[in-house]
Amino acid sequence: MTQNQFDKKSQAWSALFSEPMSELVQRYTSSVFFDKRLAQADIEGSLAHADMLAAQKIISAQDLADIQRGMAQIQGEIDAGSFEWKLALEDVHLNIEARLTQLVGDAGKRLHTGRSRNDQVATDVRLWLRGEIDLIDGLLTDLQKALVKIASENVDAILPGFTHLQVAQPVSFGHHMLAYVEMFARDAERLGDVRRRVNRLPLGSAALAGTTYPLDRERVARTLGMEGVCQNSLDAVSDRDFAIEFTAAASLCMVHISRFSEELILWMSQNFGFIQIADRFTTGSSIMPQKKNPDVPELARGKTGRVVGHLMGLITLMKGQPLAYNKDNQEDKEPLFDTVDTLKDTLRIFAEMVGGITVKKDAMEAAALKGYATATDLADYLVKKGLPFRDAHETVAHAVKAAISHACDLSELPLSVLQGFNPGIEKDVYDVLSLRGSLNARNTLGGTAPAQVQQQIARHQKRLSAG
Amino acid sequence: MTQNQFDKKSQAWSALFSEPMSELVQRYTSSVFFDKRLAQADIEGSLAHADMLAAQKIISAQDLADIQRGMAQIQGEIDAGSFEWKLALEDVHLNIEARLTQLVGDAGKRLHTGRSRNDQVATDVRLWLRGEIDLIDGLLTDLQKALVKIASENVDAILPGFTHLQVAQPVSFGHHMLAYVEMFARDAERLGDVRRRVNRLPLGSAALAGTTYPLDRERVARTLGMEGVCQNSLDAVSDRDFAIEFTAAASLCMVHISRFSEELILWMSQNFGFIQIADRFTTGSSIMPQKKNPDVPELARGKTGRVVGHLMGLITLMKGQPLAYNKDNQEDKEPLFDTVDTLKDTLRIFAEMVGGITVKKDAMEAAALKGYATATDLADYLVKKGLPFRDAHETVAHAVKAAISHACDLSELPLSVLQGFNPGIEKDVYDVLSLRGSLNARNTLGGTAPAQVQQQIARHQKRLSAG
Amino acid sequence: MTQNQFDKKSQAWSALFSEPMSELVQRYTSSVFFDKRLAQADIEGSLAHADMLAAQKIISAQDLADIQRGMAQIQGEIDAGSFEWKLALEDVHLNIEARLTQLVGDAGKRLHTGRSRNDQVATDVRLWLRGEIDLIDGLLTDLQKALVKIASENVDAILPGFTHLQVAQPVSFGHHMLAYVEMFARDAERLGDVRRRVNRLPLGSAALAGTTYPLDRERVARTLGMEGVCQNSLDAVSDRDFAIEFTAAASLCMVHISRFSEELILWMSQNFGFIQIADRFTTGSSIMPQKKNPDVPELARGKTGRVVGHLMGLITLMKGQPLAYNKDNQEDKEPLFDTVDTLKDTLRIFAEMVGGITVKKDAMEAAALKGYATATDLADYLVKKGLPFRDAHETVAHAVKAAISHACDLSELPLSVLQGFNPGIEKDVYDVLSLRGSLNARNTLGGTAPAQVQQQIARHQKRLSAG
Amino acid sequence: MTQNQFDKKSQAWSALFSEPMSELVQRYTSSVFFDKRLAQADIEGSLAHADMLAAQKIISAQDLADIQRGMAQIQGEIDAGSFEWKLALEDVHLNIEARLTQLVGDAGKRLHTGRSRNDQVATDVRLWLRGEIDLIDGLLTDLQKALVKIASENVDAILPGFTHLQVAQPVSFGHHMLAYVEMFARDAERLGDVRRRVNRLPLGSAALAGTTYPLDRERVARTLGMEGVCQNSLDAVSDRDFAIEFTAAASLCMVHISRFSEELILWMSQNFGFIQIADRFTTGSSIMPQKKNPDVPELARGKTGRVVGHLMGLITLMKGQPLAYNKDNQEDKEPLFDTVDTLKDTLRIFAEMVGGITVKKDAMEAAALKGYATATDLADYLVKKGLPFRDAHETVAHAVKAAISHACDLSELPLSVLQGFNPGIEKDVYDVLSLRGSLNARNTLGGTAPAQVQQQIARHQKRLSAG
Repeated sequence: MTQNQFDKKSQAWSALFSEPMSELVQRYTSSVFFDKRLAQADIEGSLAHADMLAAQKIISAQDLADIQRGMAQIQGEIDAGSFEWKLALEDVHLNIEARLTQLVGDAGKRLHTGRSRNDQVATDVRLWLRGEIDLIDGLLTDLQKALVKIASENVDAILPGFTHLQVAQPVSFGHHMLAYVEMFARDAERLGDVRRRVNRLPLGSAALAGTTYPLDRERVARTLGMEGVCQNSLDAVSDRDFAIEFTAAASLCMVHISRFSEELILWMSQNFGFIQIADRFTTGSSIMPQKKNPDVPELARGKTGRVVGHLMGLITLMKGQPLAYNKDNQEDKEPLFDTVDTLKDTLRIFAEMVGGITVKKDAMEAAALKGYATATDLADYLVKKGLPFRDAHETVAHAVKAAISHACDLSELPLSVLQGFNPGIEKDVYDVLSLRGSLNARNTLGGTAPAQVQQQIARHQKRLSAG
Repeated sequence: MTQNQFDKKSQAWSALFSEPMSELVQRYTSSVFFDKRLAQADIEGSLAHADMLAAQKIISAQDLADIQRGMAQIQGEIDAGSFEWKLALEDVHLNIEARLTQLVGDAGKRLHTGRSRNDQVATDVRLWLRGEIDLIDGLLTDLQKALVKIASENVDAILPGFTHLQVAQPVSFGHHMLAYVEMFARDAERLGDVRRRVNRLPLGSAALAGTTYPLDRERVARTLGMEGVCQNSLDAVSDRDFAIEFTAAASLCMVHISRFSEELILWMSQNFGFIQIADRFTTGSSIMPQKKNPDVPELARGKTGRVVGHLMGLITLMKGQPLAYNKDNQEDKEPLFDTVDTLKDTLRIFAEMVGGITVKKDAMEAAALKGYATATDLADYLVKKGLPFRDAHETVAHAVKAAISHACDLSELPLSVLQGFNPGIEKDVYDVLSLRGSLNARNTLGGTAPAQVQQQIARHQKRLSAG
Repeated sequence: MTQNQFDKKSQAWSALFSEPMSELVQRYTSSVFFDKRLAQADIEGSLAHADMLAAQKIISAQDLADIQRGMAQIQGEIDAGSFEWKLALEDVHLNIEARLTQLVGDAGKRLHTGRSRNDQVATDVRLWLRGEIDLIDGLLTDLQKALVKIASENVDAILPGFTHLQVAQPVSFGHHMLAYVEMFARDAERLGDVRRRVNRLPLGSAALAGTTYPLDRERVARTLGMEGVCQNSLDAVSDRDFAIEFTAAASLCMVHISRFSEELILWMSQNFGFIQIADRFTTGSSIMPQKKNPDVPELARGKTGRVVGHLMGLITLMKGQPLAYNKDNQEDKEPLFDTVDTLKDTLRIFAEMVGGITVKKDAMEAAALKGYATATDLADYLVKKGLPFRDAHETVAHAVKAAISHACDLSELPLSVLQGFNPGIEKDVYDVLSLRGSLNARNTLGGTAPAQVQQQIARHQKRLSAG
Repeated sequence: MTQNQFDKKSQAWSALFSEPMSELVQRYTSSVFFDKRLAQADIEGSLAHADMLAAQKIISAQDLADIQRGMAQIQGEIDAGSFEWKLALEDVHLNIEARLTQLVGDAGKRLHTGRSRNDQVATDVRLWLRGEIDLIDGLLTDLQKALVKIASENVDAILPGFTHLQVAQPVSFGHHMLAYVEMFARDAERLGDVRRRVNRLPLGSAALAGTTYPLDRERVARTLGMEGVCQNSLDAVSDRDFAIEFTAAASLCMVHISRFSEELILWMSQNFGFIQIADRFTTGSSIMPQKKNPDVPELARGKTGRVVGHLMGLITLMKGQPLAYNKDNQEDKEPLFDTVDTLKDTLRIFAEMVGGITVKKDAMEAAALKGYATATDLADYLVKKGLPFRDAHETVAHAVKAAISHACDLSELPLSVLQGFNPGIEKDVYDVLSLRGSLNARNTLGGTAPAQVQQQIARHQKRLSAG
């Protein structure tokens, strides 16, 4: 067994190189300290490749057995934390292959037949990301379940619905929570679409042009549970669409988190006082003894920037790159890894935190009484009496003006005053002017009436338990 | 018929307002000069809404007829360019509704029953975007067809395949073109996924909470060809995921355009000289008389930044917004419109330009001879002789070093010299050391061998003609 | 006088081109419909160039006179709106030069001596941007003045200062307004730095390499009021740093606007009710008759995304471009123009709107009483009695807990109860527990004590009137 | 000495909290594992604060001595790697303060008098960043020196200057290198501006409103070498402009790096072959034995995306935040740290790599002969004979067309043929048609003539040695 490049990284890359890589460059270009998290995917991919090589008689059954044995030992070493990662061996792929060769000799050297690091790393990242998407999908389900649960407990709690952060119309707090369920359900749906495009096999594309060995790529895809094979070798090694697409989906999910966080922070503020978040999700101040801060939603809102930044970074990375693989692409990993970590941590903590929210129904309902939230109901009442909507709208503006000047709610104006604005108004107007009357009246598909909200809750419960 | 807010925008918004909007504010907040491109979608949505209102007996059959007549006239005025858009009426919705009321009286005022501008604008944008996605899908097909055509004409043209922009292995120019077909096919697939989420109906969510009228939202969805109804009114009026998701997909498509552009620009450069772009796609210089510049790909590469910028703008826009509708959302339109325009213009011009590319096969093949592109083939040859791949790799590095010092290609080294590196090398080595031998040898699925490329071309032709 | 390229754009670019530019390409690559706003800068630059050419005897005095006469007429036509902009002439530069040649013949053709469009456009954009920066600087001054004015009227108004949107400590509303004065002052300072780098002359760099004519570039710089000459021709024509740097500064300014907007929107919300914005800066709802929405700050918050998007677009544009000029750079203009427009419109409307804010002091002060805002003062009181700060902090936490359970403020706890937490507490504690006592106590540089705020107001007034 | 919050983080934050922070939340919100790199700045800031507290008689001289002694020990422990960082203590500030209190008792507890973590962290980040800017400034100088050196060695080396990546005019390779010197000089200038705004003191702003202790903030600023004191406490604790501004400047610097990288990669490509990069800056391929890849510039080009992503992340983070400090801001650190690391590593490696570039003058000059690079010179020659520039331009287009059809350079066309295009052409035309003649002729300020380049080199050498 002759020396090979693995033994000589401290010397030169190959006979072609007149000097070894400078130490500065080694640190600059080495990826092993972040890409080692691909180890399991790397091993899984290598075993599927070796299995196929043997089936195609490209390597011997003995080679395959040696590789399997070596990989089992390596997996064990990694699990035990005893595997020695070497910076000089650049990346996870060379580290594992070098150790394999050390353990099983020539069979290890034969593993790289018909592949290159270019298709290998693309395969590893896809395998790894597929697994992470599945974990995220589970966390999205958990979060939705927590939201449905709090919704189901608060169908009748009345919140002032805002547009422009101005009191608009009363809504059910449960209904409001279900708006976020819709968002996170869309996120899960979107990730499902991304997963389909992640779950395709680049392996067998070799460096860029395919290989001279009679590979059976479809066998490898089946072994790895992939839905298809990348059909063009140049594209296969240079495509990072799936990473960008995933990060875009993650950014949208974080935007939803940021919107929810904004609301939690508002609702926790003394001027709203709509909810409390359990103490274990808050922090105090080093200087102000009275403080109880909603750190978790604030930090999550801040982390939106982090994920969006990664999306921007990845797109910038790919812009204008000629085919096929360029070293630039090594920079896809850290943003992708950090996006996955941030998203998972955030979803997990939110699912827990939602369970620790205390809803202060009285404060919510009191706030809903402040902003003439039933004005639209009065307009609708007038329409039912025959006024065109636009005229009813203007009539009600006059009534609101009167109520403001009397410093009272619309429902507190005497009938005679209301009739001054429109003689058709009768005593039954007070039904529509109450918060609960307003709420119950919005009883069409997607509306905030408790009956509708209950139906939606039932739909979500069924959907989420099916998952 | 009393006065209403439409007549008084130059005065005050409603009786509640003590002064009219300042002119500066009117210009700052008005959207009619860009959102008027939603007019057709607005009318289509309004007609579907009116049809349902009549079916549900919320308005009379006469009202419906009046609305239909008025809308027909308005559509005619818009088509004829005679419709008078008024800044004071803020947006496309109020402009059309005001004109309708002017034309048909109270029926026009009744149209807004059970809806709000919040759900109306969300519906309009979705309807409009759905149509644009379909147009873009057609343009993506055209571009793919043009690429498949040039691929089919250049299956046997040999290009130096690059990694790291260093000559790597010979590839078929046709194969290289098909890499872009894969990318644009993925773009189309992705837009198909986006379309599903665009094609859902917010209308009937009213301002934020649903409505008190007995709407049949599913009827409206059917009339408009939508696949479903948004299930939560708060989410329906505040959701802009579809715009972000579309812009993310458009950004990826532009990234592909930018990569292709980079290559066209390189290939047009005198140092490559691989292609010519038809003169009608190039420009000259105001100072340098000899210049012929690839303006179109350069500009397209630049426009990638524009679309990516819009994506970032839209995400920033939505970050941290509380529910439900906020005026911030008005800022979703211009970036979305410009993204659609940029993408359509670029795809259209690229489909044409690809048809105007002249491939200079001799220059490509000459370039492929420069960088020891068949070195991997020699390594594979040695593996087939029994060497582990890693050892073969190192042996070839020595051979390349020798060839460099002799200033010749590997295929020009005498057999005796080659045998000095490994005695197992025989005369048949020269078959694998030729460009064409190398090309033909990569005959596995997705590889660059002409036989593979022909199969891919056939697959794409079938797929694209089916569309 | 022979034909030249201007007459033939509908034919071919020059004798080298076998066909005219396709119409689609003409529209795709033409910039005249947005870059015509550079016309004045273009003329100014051309006149300075011509003046120097004549001084250097490169053109005759008669040529100069002809050019001056022609440019005066062109300027008149543009001012009068009668100048005919032609798409076929691509950009503002060729449009003006073609018209000049039409008006004054060969002198017009001589104007381009020693320059290229590459250095011409770089010069035009810099001249134009310098002027816009000066306008923006004025608008920033106006906005600061408006903020200082409202601050000066509300030095004693007490607002609950928030951290984490939780009530933290009472602050002066004037102090709070001055925080924004600091931000906008920094923006102005930053723009001043940008201006220095904008105000350098690329002209005379010609296409990329300098020119063969004996230009006096420093004379041109002096004529144009520029602070220096770009010292490297390749850099001069490819540098867009100044556009990116400006847009980054604009983004920061918009971030400040977005933060201020967020607060205005919160304060307008019924749950805060701290301010009213004059009706002329608000809008109503098409469906909810009671609504008065803070559209201007909402839209401004949204427009932050727009400007940030432009920044990202410009950076993406420049990433990875080889030297020197590439057509990609044409894409620098629209984002830059829109950034300038957005920033100017927003600053102007904010300066006006600040003048229309009504401060509801009672509501603010009532809110400040809600969250134990003087707890830190109690801790400080205990420190002055000899407790280490950390111990005092913990003691006060217990006192706050007691106040919460009594549903009262700290200042409402009886002395005996307070002494239960620390026997050193005396009657004078009630001075520090009042909002006003707390406010006055923070009387160090930069603190919120009215005395400090007054000093800051005086400093700003002096600074801003000096401008 | 009573217990305090430090001892109880595993229990609850203060008496106000009914339960300790959940472990998940502790990990999510803790920053100590990345912000510990602020330790030295934190200690430096604390010592300056303590010094002032003692000078102002707020703490005793003994307290100060205790704090100084404790901090010296802590610094020693950190330097020795023996300091025990605790996740439960959240951040660098509490870790150090807790250890200090452990070491010196009550004096440690008194250190926090008159400050809060809000102003403390803002001060630490500024101190730290100031130091990093100074290091980066040094690296920028090193890189410029390396570029000036290679420029000085290659003043007469002729490179084809490109616009649109088409051969435009011959330029000096030295001149080309100096274009990058201009860019990096601008970066240094810009960082100098940023530094001024970084170097201001927030400390003494306490939580948000200033403090009740008679601090001497200007003394602290002087001790820390800061140029001024933040004048508004609310702004001081919430301002992250300096971080965004720094990251924007870093992004621009990386854009310059990316442009230079793009060119190095092109020039290394076999089709250009203009340079070699020393082997120690390149890597090989795991599959292609002949490869020598320019990994360093590729990776640097890729890392541009990383830094740009951080800029986007930071802006998104700050958008729409109300005053004053919010927990979102904790997310400013990792992007800022990574930006600094990436920029420093990249500048350092580039300064070294530039020293390892071998310029292949013959290949460059041969390439410059390919694209009619002297066509503009011929046009200028004709102008000097009296033709208007525009006519000369068209005449030369015809000459180039003829040269193309003869497959020769303009300088190879016989005089009679040239005279056919314009009878005024004489024998001296061949001087201007040579590459070197063209180069020498561009002898105006900023032009590529070797005489100009020498002057620029002298200017830069003087400037850079002064630094």
